[in-house]
Parts: sequence; structure tokens; C-alpha cells
Amino acid sequence: MVKVGIVGGTGYTGAELLRLLVGHPNANVTVITSRSEKGVPVAQLYPNLRGLVDLAFSEPDIDSLSGCDLVFFATPHGVAQNTVPAILATGTKVIDLSADFRIRDIAIWEHWYGQAHGAADLVPRAVYGLPEYNRKAIQDADLVACPGCYPTSVQLGLMPLLQAGCIDPTDLIANSASGVSGAGRQASIANLHTEVSDSFKAYAASGHRHLPEIEQGLSDMAGMDVNLTFVPHLLPINRGIHSTIYANLTDTAVDVQALFEQCYADEPFVDVLPAGSHPETRSVRGSNYCRIAVHRPGNGNKVVVLVVEDNLTKGASGQAIQCMNLMFQLPETAGLSMPGMVP
Amino acid sequence: MVKVGIVGGTGYTGAELLRLLVGHPNANVTVITSRSEKGVPVAQLYPNLRGLVDLAFSEPDIDSLSGCDLVFFATPHGVAQNTVPAILATGTKVIDLSADFRIRDIAIWEHWYGQAHGAADLVPRAVYGLPEYNRKAIQDADLVACPGCYPTSVQLGLMPLLQAGCIDPTDLIANSASGVSGAGRQASIANLHTEVSDSFKAYAASGHRHLPEIEQGLSDMAGMDVNLTFVPHLLPINRGIHSTIYANLTDTAVDVQALFEQCYADEPFVDVLPAGSHPETRSVRGSNYCRIAVHRPGNGNKVVVLVVEDNLTKGASGQAIQCMNLMFQLPETAGLSMPGMVP
Amino acid sequence: MVKVGIVGGTGYTGAELLRLLVGHPNANVTVITSRSEKGVPVAQLYPNLRGLVDLAFSEPDIDSLSGCDLVFFATPHGVAQNTVPAILATGTKVIDLSADFRIRDIAIWEHWYGQAHGAADLVPRAVYGLPEYNRKAIQDADLVACPGCYPTSVQLGLMPLLQAGCIDPTDLIANSASGVSGAGRQASIANLHTEVSDSFKAYAASGHRHLPEIEQGLSDMAGMDVNLTFVPHLLPINRGIHSTIYANLTDTAVDVQALFEQCYADEPFVDVLPAGSHPETRSVRGSNYCRIAVHRPGNGNKVVVLVVEDNLTKGASGQAIQCMNLMFQLPETAGLSMPGMVP
Amino acid sequence: MVKVGIVGGTGYTGAELLRLLVGHPNANVTVITSRSEKGVPVAQLYPNLRGLVDLAFSEPDIDSLSGCDLVFFATPHGVAQNTVPAILATGTKVIDLSADFRIRDIAIWEHWYGQAHGAADLVPRAVYGLPEYNRKAIQDADLVACPGCYPTSVQLGLMPLLQAGCIDPTDLIANSASGVSGAGRQASIANLHTEVSDSFKAYAASGHRHLPEIEQGLSDMAGMDVNLTFVPHLLPINRGIHSTIYANLTDTAVDVQALFEQCYADEPFVDVLPAGSHPETRSVRGSNYCRIAVHRPGNGNKVVVLVVEDNLTKGASGQAIQCMNLMFQLPETAGLSMPGMVP
Repeated sequence: MVKVGIVGGTGYTGAELLRLLVGHPNANVTVITSRSEKGVPVAQLYPNLRGLVDLAFSEPDIDSLSGCDLVFFATPHGVAQNTVPAILATGTKVIDLSADFRIRDIAIWEHWYGQAHGAADLVPRAVYGLPEYNRKAIQDADLVACPGCYPTSVQLGLMPLLQAGCIDPTDLIANSASGVSGAGRQASIANLHTEVSDSFKAYAASGHRHLPEIEQGLSDMAGMDVNLTFVPHLLPINRGIHSTIYANLTDTAVDVQALFEQCYADEPFVDVLPAGSHPETRSVRGSNYCRIAVHRPGNGNKVVVLVVEDNLTKGASGQAIQCMNLMFQLPETAGLSMPGMVP
Repeated sequence: MVKVGIVGGTGYTGAELLRLLVGHPNANVTVITSRSEKGVPVAQLYPNLRGLVDLAFSEPDIDSLSGCDLVFFATPHGVAQNTVPAILATGTKVIDLSADFRIRDIAIWEHWYGQAHGAADLVPRAVYGLPEYNRKAIQDADLVACPGCYPTSVQLGLMPLLQAGCIDPTDLIANSASGVSGAGRQASIANLHTEVSDSFKAYAASGHRHLPEIEQGLSDMAGMDVNLTFVPHLLPINRGIHSTIYANLTDTAVDVQALFEQCYADEPFVDVLPAGSHPETRSVRGSNYCRIAVHRPGNGNKVVVLVVEDNLTKGASGQAIQCMNLMFQLPETAGLSMPGMVP
Repeated sequence: MVKVGIVGGTGYTGAELLRLLVGHPNANVTVITSRSEKGVPVAQLYPNLRGLVDLAFSEPDIDSLSGCDLVFFATPHGVAQNTVPAILATGTKVIDLSADFRIRDIAIWEHWYGQAHGAADLVPRAVYGLPEYNRKAIQDADLVACPGCYPTSVQLGLMPLLQAGCIDPTDLIANSASGVSGAGRQASIANLHTEVSDSFKAYAASGHRHLPEIEQGLSDMAGMDVNLTFVPHLLPINRGIHSTIYANLTDTAVDVQALFEQCYADEPFVDVLPAGSHPETRSVRGSNYCRIAVHRPGNGNKVVVLVVEDNLTKGASGQAIQCMNLMFQLPETAGLSMPGMVP
Repeated sequence: MVKVGIVGGTGYTGAELLRLLVGHPNANVTVITSRSEKGVPVAQLYPNLRGLVDLAFSEPDIDSLSGCDLVFFATPHGVAQNTVPAILATGTKVIDLSADFRIRDIAIWEHWYGQAHGAADLVPRAVYGLPEYNRKAIQDADLVACPGCYPTSVQLGLMPLLQAGCIDPTDLIANSASGVSGAGRQASIANLHTEVSDSFKAYAASGHRHLPEIEQGLSDMAGMDVNLTFVPHLLPINRGIHSTIYANLTDTAVDVQALFEQCYADEPFVDVLPAGSHPETRSVRGSNYCRIAVHRPGNGNKVVVLVVEDNLTKGASGQAIQCMNLMFQLPETAGLSMPGMVP
């Protein structure tokens, strides 16, 4: 059994790690930390875990964390970089769900996250935790930077096309929409039920933190710099990301349906739907699947890719566990085979 | 492995059986029937099951069903009674999720369901599938009548009080609210998103089909006839039942909190919350738990019991699987230990 | 034109006053105050009012408020009592939407609201603003205490029965449910979309601040002390209150349907539905109507009253404007005739 | 007072016409028809209109309809074309909310709507009812084809850019999302609460009926053929359309903010938000406003236009009433000045 620690367990990605690890056959959570809730039983904050999780939150502490085989950081951006070096030094592996180790260009990270980076020397050591692109490197990693929720959906939606070289990488559009849980569990007026329910809006249309992460990943896939217009929107649901991606085919002879099916034929968590389909976010609610459909309206040169995932699962905690499975030579699907909850 | 058949698999309780049985370590679904969707892959109707369920719907057929160890009926009321006799005759066990075998008084059944009963002679053989009340009988049964969703919540909320004899059984009130999935998956105007979302209402305030079922169960528990006022309401959510139950204490010295805790101390799926709590339906969303809190406002003689369950899980398909586990000497919690999905 | 001031205009009852007064033919908002948003245009905070409201928030100030004919207080409990005396002294009338002047027994107020009352001598002068019970007194008042949202629904649901003397006033139950806007517009975790959407729960089952207000009103109607069990619930919608009220008939010969119809025959905003109906909260969404249905399940001695209102309209700002219309000899329905928004 | 008839009054656009006309100072509904609900009081089907609308549905009948000054058709596509000729012949004006008279090219109409057109000779006489583009022609029209909901949002979002000639009209993208009421009020499984709530999906990605209507309008504005990729999505809300529109600037020196502000400076119902804004659908819920924001991410050549409207109001019935006001020389905003309902 992999002994697991979770730092920052009060937020939604922490709670999702717990929900998923409760049913994992090869891992046990032994430590979960929260400064603000120190001493409080986890199941008091999350009554859905009553009878299933007996732990209480403890103060973060290198000694207890280094007793784990693996520590997940489910902390706000800027926190993990302060503690990860000390934990790695003890031989404990780390998966960081925050943005701290995702972006290779430190200047870009510091620009978008508005602070100096506290562990820039570790960034080259971090492996970007997108199994469909980076599986082998993840298997050998001791520090994994788990991708953001939007970036996962956009990269999985464009990877087959970019790798095949059949679209113009300089004119990509990702029109994405996320459930509210992406904003985390913090007191705010902006995310009250009264403010976001029964409504829909774009936000950060002029620039969002996930843009440089997505462009870095897409550029890796394309083997050249890409240019993406990324507009996120806020859905009045809790879980789910839907990305509608537009690109211009440079080779209109390509069979895009076959391309996607071949690219993901062996992937356990990427499901290419039959031609003509439209994936629904609910089909992946609470599950680690990503579902994709690809269209060519009017059989023209515009390709439209539809991607859904659960932002807390494949977009965060599920993907982190998928990486853990790879890092510890467990079956990649261990603990992750539950279907989406419908209805 | 228990070989399982499902009759009427296109509705929500059928889909929920599949969702739960996908992860069950000791059972396999080998047949699933639907006249209207004959030949259609299950995963076409329910894309959340893609990659996890390979079956297609088949025409109901005694031969194939009798090859199963157990058949679940997830059919509308009035259907199971026509086929169950033939299946039982082959030695295959049956769990009926409809109302066909729940009510012992045939006249009452025929009054509320508006048709003649087609298998009245089997009704005495049917065991009412509420494990917390009927565990031993279920273990020995070959025909189980799985309780209704509202009846489960109201009976679990009143059982400790009725068995202790500390309330007046002639003046009980259950003010219940259900998610929309309780209405099933049929084309209708009344259950369109545009008709039920962003709204709330009572319905059937003058009398609901579940009333006689609940009163029968409560009378069994009380050892005398009870009188219940039952008012159901429709919640603008998909899953979840919340029952707010009012009763008058005849013995105000009783410690109701302790009474509930003792009654359910050994129950794997009934969770009595600490004094002062208020259970949320989301804490049991997608799970088989029932959570209960008990209050005495102003420390008076009125006891208020708050009960939540997922109407599709503990209120239907999860409870049916719990009964299956009992009937086949499996661990009672097999396949049912997932926590509620929060958020 | 009545010159209107609003103190505390950033919350939802303030915004609702503005929304309704925009269309009022006989009133103009001339001042709206908010310490925190001083100088900010109202339409910046509430873009739905762009093009319709040109005011900016100003600091509360007796001079500018006393230039109004009427000042609405849409402030948190405990605020109005500090300023109302000075405003009344200038001859300007006041309608307070908070609880400050609702409860005649100062000790009870101080107990439930956890502070000393700052203007106890004004409480006897305040008229309780429930037009259906207090119309004449409101017409002559210069200080009106606008009823709470839950209290409005419960009092309107029980008034015909209590005034007719046909129920036992010592055993009343109000099972109520409110939309989230009742919790106001303040940063909190508890009311995030992720915490309250797709869920349902009771709260304050052991005692809620509105209980003494409701009992005071019901006792006035009954001419004797009443005893009420009141359990509020939180609905995953923004607007709407639904109260399901249970009482025991002492006179089973009474025609309860006729009783309600006669009681409210001349009321412009109380609509008694035909026998057998179930009101929906959406039928009053955004409107000042209260809709009521009355049932006697099984024709027994239990009477069940179903009441819906919009908590921000008839439960707060709409009722306040109805009171204003009465105080200024305007048509009672002026500015309030819009239907509920369906769907 | 304009005497108004409504044909097909049981659907949501019919109900919205009634909701809005109840408060219109210069129009009265005198006839409302429905074959299926003949004789049923309107307020029985729509209890939100109790006390405000006394009409009952009647059988459609040329005599009674021709007694009106104006008849709205709120019927499914293909119905109006059978009756409109006879009504026009009596001198009564017609506004058709369906698609029957929107598309000038009859072959295209017949292709997308799958039937022969029954009144092709009337199509040239019909004026496309988008006041911001066609105000003068609407004033003189006796037959107005009211635009579709999606087309209104996309055309208003692109008109300033196309008329200024500063974008490439051959590569336009409209990523739109609509509330469920756009699907109408018909029994269906696909639009049940259980099927569409708590989820999000694209649909008709390969081609939607509104595409030719939008392209016709945009081509008129551009003075040349345009090419649009249009992908509609289904939001789990009842009302609201949000279109996110992407275009490539051919002139990057243009001040797009100023362009939009100048274009709509005198429009009563198009509100251009300040630079950097993101309109929310709730800000126009139940109102006739369209709110627009325009962005240039990274100050590049991609322009992103965000447009919101209420699909039942500015997207259908409100726009129809705006046209009526123009046709009858009434103030254009008569009966349409209510703000969006927030929260």
C-alpha cells in the first residue's frame, strides 16, 4: 500500500482526493494537513466521508509528511514551492496540483502569478503530469506538476491534430466553460449561489493564467510555437469542463475521426465518441474520463473539437491519482474506474 | 460471481443498478432487457457507461433470465407481477424495485395503483426489503419487494421512536421532498427543465401512493395502526430525498439522540449525526447512506427527525443491491462503499 | 411623486427595491446609501439597472435622507435603530425591512438578536407592515416594521384559520423552505454555489429568529398564545419561499376552502387557488403575489396549507412598497402588478 | 389601444407575450388561440397570470383574428404560413415569431425545415424584424418576420464590425449557448430536468437551422457573402443566450470599443458595456436588453465579442413587441422597460 499524505486538504481538490482514495485498493491516506482546521476530523468538514475517513487535519509537518511514500499538494498557488524541496529531500515523492511547477519559463510564471518563485531550481525536475502525453516520464518522476483543469481539456482536444501536423497552430481558439468548483472553496461574494446560479458569463476574456500553460503544452506537441485565443466561461453547475475548440485544417484530406480514434486507442481515460456525437459534462461527472467528439461543419476546413471532463477529477485529483498509479507501478486505472454519475 | 439480470434497464433505477454493479466485486450483469431499445448497446443510451458496460438491451425472455442467479425488476408498477412467477419457478431469485409486491393488502394495492393484481398469491411470499428492519428475512428470501424511496426515508426516521414506544403513533407527519429522478425517465411536459427547475412545490398533498406502504411499515414497527400525514414535494435537483418528520413524544424523559444512536449502532448505511446537526442531501448523493439527525425544538414534546438519502441509491437501486448481498451471503457493503459526491 | 431614500442599498432587498421602484408610477428614488460603496454608480454593482438607474451610492447622511418623503432601511438587523429616530424627527417616514422594530417584547428581541436594542421607545410606535392584517394602521403609520419573509408566508397561511377559531392554536407546524437570497449578499463559504446548489437541508431546526416574530403575529390573530414548531430549509434556488403548514381542526364541519376564499376575497396580492391545487414558487417569482392552497388529506382533522411567495418581493421589498402605497394614499397595487416570471 | 391576437399561445413565447403585454400601456390582448387547450382559461395553464389575464384559449378563427389590429404567431415552424395570407388580406398586421418568413431563399428554407413552403409569395413582403438594422422598414411593414434567438445575438454582436468593414467576413465563429426554454414546451425525454440540469453540451455542431438565417443577415450587413462557423450549446438554465463571437480584424488600428459605442449610442435596448467587462445572462433575465462587451486578447488581431440576451424576450417575444411598437407608432420602449431580474 502506498502511504499518502495530503497537504491542504480542506479545499475541493483535497476533498476529491479523499473521495477517490477511499476506494483505492493500493493506497492509504495517512496524513492530511490544514493549518486552519488543525484537530478537526475530516468527516466533520465533509460529512459525506463519515464512516469512511477517520483522520483529523493536522498541522503541516515535514516529519510526518516524509513518513509517506507520496505527498499530494492541494494548496493554493505559491504554497507548495515552499515545502516541496524539503519533502523531496527525504525521498518522498510529490504530486503538486497547483500551478507552482507547471511552467518552465520562470519569468512567465512570475508574471501571471504575481510573485517571485521560491523553488525555481526544482522546476526543470518537475514532470508535467499529462499521462496521455508524458506517460513514461511520469513513471520515472519524483515530482509531478499536475496540469490545470482547462489545460487538460484543451491539450487532449488538440494533441491528435497537432501531432499529425494537419492544422494551423498559429490560429487556435479554445472556448471553454467550467463549473464553479474550479474557483475553490473560499468565502466570496462572486461565487455565491445567488451570484452564479441561473446565469452564464465569460470571464478573463483578455487573458487567463491558464493561457501560458496551455500554450506551452501545445507548443511541445506541435514542435513549434502556437497561438491560442482562450476564453473561459462560468457554468452554473459545480463540476464539469466543456471546451469547444476551433482550428483550421491545413490538410483537408485527413480523416479527423480516425485520427482521434487512433491517437487514443489505448488510452484508458480518453474516450473518442462516434462521429456526429456531442459529449455532455454529466457523462463524466465524478469520473476520470475525458470524452471527445470531433466535427467538420459543412465538411469545410474548420475542425471543431468538443471535449468534456470533470474539472475536479480528470482536471485535477483523478489525474493526480492516475499519475500516482504510474509513479508506483500500479495499474493505471486503480481506484479510478467509476463511471460518471447520471442523472 | 452472482449472475445478474435486469428487466427494464432503460429507466433511471436500471441505469443506477448498472452504475453500481460495474464496481461490484461479486456480481456481473449478464442480461439487461428493454423491449423498446432491443439491440441498442446500453452505453449508447448511457454514454457514462462507455468502456465499462458492453451489453446491449435484449427482449425480455424467460430462458435467458432464468440463466441468472438473480433478476432485478426496474420496471413501472404493474409489470413485474406478470413475469416474476415464471422466473421464480426456475429457481432464479427476484428483487422487484417496483411497488408490485410491497403491500400485503391486495385491495389497498389495487385501489392506489388502479389495476387488478396479477400475482396476488405471491405477495405473502415477498419479503419487504428494508435491511434495517428485515435483515434476517431478506437473507432467506427468494422474492424481495424493494421499498419505495419516500417509504425508506420515513421508516428509517421513525423506527427507533416507534420501537421504543415513546411517541404517539396516531399523529405522525412526514414532510418529504424528492429530486426529479423519482419521476422516472419518460417524456412529459411536467418534468421538463423549464417546468421544475428554479421552483419548488408540494404535490399529492391529499394522498400519495406511498402513503399506504409507509403506514404498513410503520404499523409493523409500532405493533399497532399508525396515522400519518404525508406531503411530498418536488425539489429542483436530480437526486436526493429529505424527510422532515414530526411526532409527539409521549415520554419526554427519553434521550432521543441516544435512542437513535443505539438503534443504528451496527448499521452500515444508517448514519446518525451528532446532536444539533442538519443532514444535507448532497452528503449522500450517489451513495447508499442514509443520514439522520434528531431535534427537540425548545426541548418540548415535539420531536423533529431529519432524514436524507439518495432516492436512486438507498431509495432504490443501492438498497436492492444491499438486499442482493444479503440474499447471496456476500458482505452487506460489497460494491456500496462509495461516499456521497461533494461538491 | 414620493421622494424615496434607501439606506443600505447594496444588498438584495435594496436591489429589489430599486428594481421595483424603477417601474413605479408615483415614486422616485433620490438617495441611496452605502458606506462601503460610496461614490460607486448603482448600475456598476447591478448591471441589470444600467440605463434605468443613474444614482450613485452615497454616505448615509441625515440631511439628504430627511429631504425624502420616505426612507426604506434595507440594512442588517441592528442598524436601523441607530438612525431611524433622527429621521423620524424630521418628519420623514420610515419603512424598516430589518427586524429592528418587529417584536414588541424588547427582551425577546435582545435574546434572539444578541444585542441591546438602541431605540426601544420607538417600538410601540412601529406598525407591523402586513397589509392583510394591519391595513388601516399602516395607512396612518410613520414607522412601519416590514415583516420577515418566513413570517409573511406563515401568517398569511394561518390567518383565516386562526381568525375563524377552527384550529388548535397550541399545536401548529410550519415546515418552510427558502431560496438562498434570504441569506443576503455577504461573502461566505456556506452560501457558495458549490455548497448549496444541487442539495437541500433543514437548518436551525431547534430554533430560528423568525419564530418569536411569527408567534407574536399568530397570537395577535388568535387572540391567545399560540405554539408553533417552525423548521426552515434551504432550497437550491435564488428566490422563493414555500411554507407547508399543518394544524389540527377543532371544527371539522368548517369548509376550509370557502374560509380562505372569503378571507382573501378583496386582497390584491393573496391568491387562493382552487381546491386540489399546489402552488409553485415560480408562479410568484419576481412578483408581489402570495399563492395559497388548502388541503384536508383523507378528509380528516389535519389541515395542510401550502403558501408560496417570493422572499425578496412579497417577503420583503414588494411588501415594503405595498406599505408605502398605503402610507401615501396611492393605489395599493401601484408598481406591483407584474406577474411572476415563468419559465 | 392596439387590439392584439396571439395564435399558439400555449408555448413559452406565447406565455412571454402575455407576461409582457399585461404591463403594456397601449395594447390589449383580445384573442388567444390554441386548438389543444380550447376553452381552458389561460391562467389555468399559467397560474402566474391569475388575476391579470382573464382570457380563455379559443380555436383559431379568421373572423376573430381579423378583428385584431395585430396578430402574433407564436406557433411551431410551418404553421403561420398557412394562415397568415388570409389574415393579411383582412388588413390585420402580422408579426410571426417562427422561422416561416425569415429566409428569402425558399430553397434554403425548405432544405433546413424539411417541408414545402406554403406561402412563398409572401416572403418578399416580410420585413426582418431586427429594429437595430431594419427600423424604418419595420415601421412601414404589415408582415414582420421576428428574428430567431441565436440570430439576434450574433447579428447584434457583429453588425458594428461588419458595417465598419474592419473584419474578415469569411472567417467568423459564433460559439453560442442557450437556456432550455429555447427548445419550447413539448413533452420530451431530451429536455427533462434529469437530462439537462447539472450538465452542459454542444449540439448540432455540424449544422443548425439558425445558420442560414444568421448568414443571410450578416451578409446583408457586410454587403458580401460571409462564412460563419456556428456551434450552439445547451445551458442548464431556463432563459438566456450568450454568444461568444470570434473574428479577425483586417484593420488593427480600429478602436473596437468606440466602434460599438457609436453604433449603438441611440439604441434603447442594446447596451455596450465598458471596456474589460463580461456580460452575464442574468443581467437581462426577463428583460428586453441585449448587453455586449468587446475584447481584443493580447491586443492582437482577434476580436472577441460577448453578447447576452434573454432568448424569450429580446430573442423572441420582447423583440416582437418592440416591432409592434414601431409598426403602430408607439414609443419603442413601451411596455419593455423592466430591468433584468437579479438575483
